[in-house]
Formats: sequence, C-alpha cells, structure tokens
Amino acid sequence: MTTIYLAGPDVFFADAAEAGRAKKELCAKYGFEGLFPLDAELAQEESADLSTRIFRANIDGIRRCDAVVANLTPFRGVSADPGTVFEIAYARGLQIPKPVFAYTNVPDSLFTRVTATFGLAPGHAADRRDFAGDGMVVENFGLADNLMIVEAIRLQGWDMVSHTASTHDVLSSLQGFEACLTQARAHFAKVQPVYAA
Amino acid sequence: MTTIYLAGPDVFFADAAEAGRAKKELCAKYGFEGLFPLDAELAQEESADLSTRIFRANIDGIRRCDAVVANLTPFRGVSADPGTVFEIAYARGLQIPKPVFAYTNVPDSLFTRVTATFGLAPGHAADRRDFAGDGMVVENFGLADNLMIVEAIRLQGWDMVSHTASTHDVLSSLQGFEACLTQARAHFAKVQPVYAA
Repeated sequence: MTTIYLAGPDVFFADAAEAGRAKKELCAKYGFEGLFPLDAELAQEESADLSTRIFRANIDGIRRCDAVVANLTPFRGVSADPGTVFEIAYARGLQIPKPVFAYTNVPDSLFTRVTATFGLAPGHAADRRDFAGDGMVVENFGLADNLMIVEAIRLQGWDMVSHTASTHDVLSSLQGFEACLTQARAHFAKVQPVYAA
Repeated sequence: MTTIYLAGPDVFFADAAEAGRAKKELCAKYGFEGLFPLDAELAQEESADLSTRIFRANIDGIRRCDAVVANLTPFRGVSADPGTVFEIAYARGLQIPKPVFAYTNVPDSLFTRVTATFGLAPGHAADRRDFAGDGMVVENFGLADNLMIVEAIRLQGWDMVSHTASTHDVLSSLQGFEACLTQARAHFAKVQPVYAA
C-alpha cells in the first residue's frame, strides 16, 4: 500500500495521538496508509539520547514512505514548524525525491505576517526589497512562507494547499489535509508505484 | 578549492552584501571559497518567477558546494530561519550528504525560548512532555532548536556551535561562524576531497 509520512506540528498537540488517528483514518479513506511520527517504534539503544532515537525514527519514516503530507500552518511564530520544514526538505533532497504535498490553514502571505508582527519600515534595500520594522529585509513574493518551502512544493507540479480555518482549529483543521490527499491520489493514479517516489 | 555554501538569514540583513563579503573573507582565511546565495547568477528565464529562480540557484549552490555552514541563530521568532533549515536538511538528504556545520549566537535552549514567549502550563502530556502556555507540547531536550535540526548536525560527529553574542549583533556576530570554519578545516584535513561530501 502507498504510505504517507504525516509531517507537522500535530505531534505537539495536546491530543496528538488522537490527531494522528484522525489523519490515518482519512489516509485510509483515500487508499493510503498514514505513518504518524509518534507511532514509531523507537530503537532501544541505551547509549542514544531520546532525541537521537526520535530523529532516526523520523528519518527512517521519511525514507520508507512513498510521499509526505505536511502541515505547514504557522506554528509559534510567523513560519511553519522548523522540524516539519526539515522533513520536507530532506524528502526533496533524496536521490529519488519523495513527492511532498503540503497545506496551510493560514492563507496570509509571509510578508503580511512579518509586517503585522514587526511592522514595515520606510525605504528599500539596494535591490528594492522591503524592510520590516526589525531593520531587516522582508521578501514580498506573495508566498505563504519562505520561498525555499513554497517553491519546493510548487516545482513538483502542484501548489501548496491554502485553506482558511477558524481561530480555534487553525493548526488542527483537516480540510487542507484532505485536499492534499486528493492531490496525492491524483498523483499516484498517474504514475506506476515503482516510479512513484 | 573546497567550497562552502553560506546558509543563513544573513541574506535578509540590511547590509547583506557586506555581510556576505565578510563571510567570504573569513572562508578564504581558512582555505575555503564561500558561496553567498545573493551572489548567485540568476537564470534569465522570462517565464520563471524571481522566487523560482532564487530557489533553483540556491539548490544549485547546495548541490555544487563541498559543505554548508549555517547561521541557525533564532530569526524573527523562537527558531532558526526556515529557509536555512530547508537548506541544511536538503544538504543532508542528498545521496552523498554534504557536511553541515552550524552555529547559533543564542545559547538558550528552544525550551527556554518557547516558555519565555508562551509561558509554561501546569501538568504534563500522557508521555510526560511539558505543555507551553499555548496549550501545546514543548519538548525539553535542552537542545538549541527543534531536534531534527540539532540531531542532524550532531550525528555527523560534531556539535552545533553555540556562542553568546551581544544584543546588537546577535544575528551577525561571526565568532560562531569562525568556529564552524575551524570544524570544517579539521573535517577536510581528515578526508580526501573526493570523499569529502
């Protein structure tokens, strides 16, 4: 069965185990098997720190899966969870890159969030880029997050899913996630499984 | 010559070009050639967005370099710049992973910064992890950032460099950067260049 690594700050939710179950159920509905990072069997190496064993289990999950679906909703700041960003970039760097589908539940651009948080300073850099109120450049490409993230998704041939969730479930709403599963189903319908990665 | 991709939010500094020159000068002092992302010649594809061309140039730089030195100082929030996180993860995912050296000018742990920003809530998750004041889990591994980032560096055989800079140059201080160049020099002294990656 086609397996999907479920990347996202969902592992930090108070009800993380339940959130993982809900995502895996949706995966099954679309014909996929979801791998939720918290479900990984951690190696019992006495000599390795827990953080090391989690890292290795997550890397193993990314390498074993057929695709990644990532929750890139801003987490504790203006951008996506950096652990999730690490995982999608790792997946794209592999010799046979894994297809990555991603969603955000905050449709604003990064520019909007940075300037809402730090303000917008007058003037422009020599290359005409804008300055935020913190005195540093803020890029205005109209993208949902740093261009490395958004372009990595887009250059695969599909867009990052942008979905407006209400405040109470801004990180946990699953409508964008389900739209990613629809993208994944269309992708895997077009390719032979052996070439799917 | 051994080339080093200079990853970091330095591209967003008001004096980004000068910051790049300073890093390249230090690279030369250690026998390396530094590649600063802003110096890339962007392909003149009329059909591609500027953000797409920057993405491609950065990926090309990472693929062409022999190593990455990354500024992982927290940027506009509790964690490192997500573009930089993307780049180091991509470098580590490659079939022949690039050695990545990284520094932060903020020696606090991520746990300290998250709880300073969001507070610490009473009680614990079922797996004994702590809750921040935002109602979500905050990991307390004593690491400088998300474990995916820190463990990726550490499992290469060296630690992320932690250096305390003063407030006025917290993002731009180059002492941690120079310590990374020392790590890189020791690394490349041990390996044949052809096996260096």
